[in-house]
Amino acid sequence: MSTALEIRLASRPEGWPTHENFEIAEVEVPEPGEGRLLVRNLVMSVDPAMRGRMNEGKSYVPPFELGAPLSGGAVGEVVTGAGDFQPGDLVVHHLGWREYAVVDPAQALRVDPEVAPINAYLSVLGMPGMTAYVGLVDIAEQREGDVVFVSGAAGAVGSLVGQLAKLRGAAKVIGSAGSPEKVRHLTEELGFDAAFNYKDGPVREQLAAAAPEGIDVYFDNVGGEHLEAAIGAMNDFGRVAECGMISQYNNTEPTPGPRNMFMLVTKRLKLQGFIVIDHAHRRDRFVAEVGQWIREGRISYRETVVEGLRNAPEAFLGLLRGENTGKMLVTIGERS
Amino acid sequence: MSTALEIRLASRPEGWPTHENFEIAEVEVPEPGEGRLLVRNLVMSVDPAMRGRMNEGKSYVPPFELGAPLSGGAVGEVVTGAGDFQPGDLVVHHLGWREYAVVDPAQALRVDPEVAPINAYLSVLGMPGMTAYVGLVDIAEQREGDVVFVSGAAGAVGSLVGQLAKLRGAAKVIGSAGSPEKVRHLTEELGFDAAFNYKDGPVREQLAAAAPEGIDVYFDNVGGEHLEAAIGAMNDFGRVAECGMISQYNNTEPTPGPRNMFMLVTKRLKLQGFIVIDHAHRRDRFVAEVGQWIREGRISYRETVVEGLRNAPEAFLGLLRGENTGKMLVTIGERS
Repeated sequence: MSTALEIRLASRPEGWPTHENFEIAEVEVPEPGEGRLLVRNLVMSVDPAMRGRMNEGKSYVPPFELGAPLSGGAVGEVVTGAGDFQPGDLVVHHLGWREYAVVDPAQALRVDPEVAPINAYLSVLGMPGMTAYVGLVDIAEQREGDVVFVSGAAGAVGSLVGQLAKLRGAAKVIGSAGSPEKVRHLTEELGFDAAFNYKDGPVREQLAAAAPEGIDVYFDNVGGEHLEAAIGAMNDFGRVAECGMISQYNNTEPTPGPRNMFMLVTKRLKLQGFIVIDHAHRRDRFVAEVGQWIREGRISYRETVVEGLRNAPEAFLGLLRGENTGKMLVTIGERS
Repeated sequence: MSTALEIRLASRPEGWPTHENFEIAEVEVPEPGEGRLLVRNLVMSVDPAMRGRMNEGKSYVPPFELGAPLSGGAVGEVVTGAGDFQPGDLVVHHLGWREYAVVDPAQALRVDPEVAPINAYLSVLGMPGMTAYVGLVDIAEQREGDVVFVSGAAGAVGSLVGQLAKLRGAAKVIGSAGSPEKVRHLTEELGFDAAFNYKDGPVREQLAAAAPEGIDVYFDNVGGEHLEAAIGAMNDFGRVAECGMISQYNNTEPTPGPRNMFMLVTKRLKLQGFIVIDHAHRRDRFVAEVGQWIREGRISYRETVVEGLRNAPEAFLGLLRGENTGKMLVTIGERS
C-alpha cells in the first residue's frame, strides 16, 4: 500500500500563524470510489484568504477543520478517470495541500497546457485573474480614463489588476507594495504608471504625490491605512472594490476603520466587497478577453514557486509576511 | 423704503454651533432686476447638512460665506413675476433664511397647495422625501422581502424611509431614534415593525434583538456606532445607503470608522454615499409614486414648526440636538 503526504490544520492560530499550527501527515493513497476522480497533484496555490478559514466561526466559506487537511486550488493529473475525464488528463480543482485528491468531476475544470503553462491556471487564468477582472469590471465599474489605484500590487491579484486596468483604458495606474524590488517590478516590468513602497511614509502622502488629480477606482487588497488614504484621494463618484484586507487578518483585536467615512457621502463613493466565486457566470467572458491578451503577450505574470509539499506551511507564512512576488505556488509532483 | 430680515453666518463654529455664530440683520427689500423673481418667503426648512457648509473647505456644495445670509429650501409667494411666474404664485426655491429672496425662475418649482399643504413641499414632497426615495430605490436597491433598518428614523428623511420601505414590500422595518416618545411614534403611528432608543444600550445589541434574522438594507443618517452595528447585522449581499453621519458633524477630531470593515468582503456588502441633487432625473417618478400614496393617506409625516425667522438659529441648534420630530420648519410670513 503506497502512502502519500497531506498537510493538516493542527491548531488554530492566535494572531500570526506559526509552524506549530500545521501537521505533516502520512496517509494511505485514497480509493476514489464510484464516480470520483483520483488526482495526483502537481502544483498548488497558497492564498492569503486561507488565514480566515484557520479561525473558528462563520465566514463566507466554512472554517478548516482541526486535524483535517487544508485545501486550496491545485492542478493535478488524473490517475483514475470518471465522468468525461481520462487517466492522464490535467484538471484544476480545490483539493490542494495533499499529494492525492479524490475529486468530484463536477468540481474539476480541464486544463489545456497548450494555451498556457499549467501554473497559469492557478494565477492569471485562475482565481486571481478572475478576481482582478470581476473586481475591476463588475465591482469598481472601471471606465476609460479612470485613475486606478491598487494595493498589494505586486501580489497575484494586484499585479493583474494593474495590467488589466491599463489594457482596459485607465488613464493612470498606481500601485503600492512593500519593498523597493516590488515597486521597481511594477513600474519597470508591469507597466504601472507609478508605484510606491508603503513602508517609505504615510500612504496618504505617497498617494497624493502619485495622483495629484485624485483617483477614481481603488482596488483594495489590504484595508487599514491604505483604505483611509484611498477614500481621502477619491474623486467624486469614485468606487472601491473591496477584495481583501490582508493588513488586518492577523489582528486579534478589531481595528478601527477609516476616520474619513463621511466622505462616502460628500463624494458619493461606493465601497463594495466581493468574492469571486459569486461571479462564476463571468468566467467565459473573462477567459475569452484575458486569454486573448495572454496569447498576444500583453500580460506578464510572475510566480514565486516553493518546491515540495512539506514546505507549504513555510510558503504560507512567507506569503503573509509579503515575501512573494506574484502568485505563491507550491510544487507537489512531476507530470508523468 | 421697507426693510426685511435676513440671518447671516457671523462666524464659523468650532464643534457645536452657538447663537454667536449667527447674526440677525435688517436689510432693504431687494430689487429683483430683469428676469428675476422677488419672492416673499412663507416657510423654510432647517437641515442638518447646513452644519457642514458652516465650515470652511470643500464639500459637495460650497461653504456658506461669512457675513452673507445662510440659505436652504423655502416656499414663498411671488411678489414680482418673471418667466412663467405671476405675482401670487407659490414657489419652492433654495433661498431661505431671509424674508425676501431674489430668485432665478429656473431655480424655482411651482407649488400646488391643492395637492398638499405648502409645508409638504419642504418635506415629504421635497428634498427629504426624494432623499428617502432615491436612497431606498436607487442606492440600497431595496427588494421585496428585505429587512430594512434606518437610523435617525424619527427625522424628516428617516420617517419617510421607514414608511416607503413598508409600502415597497419590506418584510420588516426597524428604526432607531433618541427618545422614548420618538420610538413610540415610529411603531404606533408610522407603522415601523420595531424601534429602539439608541441611548438605552449598545446599538449592536438592540439591533440584534429587533432583527435576529439580520438586515438586508441599512439607511444611514448617523454613522458612528450605528454604522458598525449595521455592518455587523447585515446579511450577505446587504446594502447601505449612506445619507449622512449626523453623529460626526460636530466632531473636531476625525473619529475612527467601523471596526468591522472586513465584513464588507466576507458578506459582500455595498456601502454607497449619495446626495439627492445628483438624482434629479428621478423627480417625476418620485412625485408620481409618492404623491399617490400621500393622496391615499398611506404616508404620515410630521413637522416641528418654529415660529418666526428670528428663531431660526435656535431651531437649527435644536435640530442638531435632536429635539425635532419629523421635518424642522421655520415660518417666516403669512400668505396674502
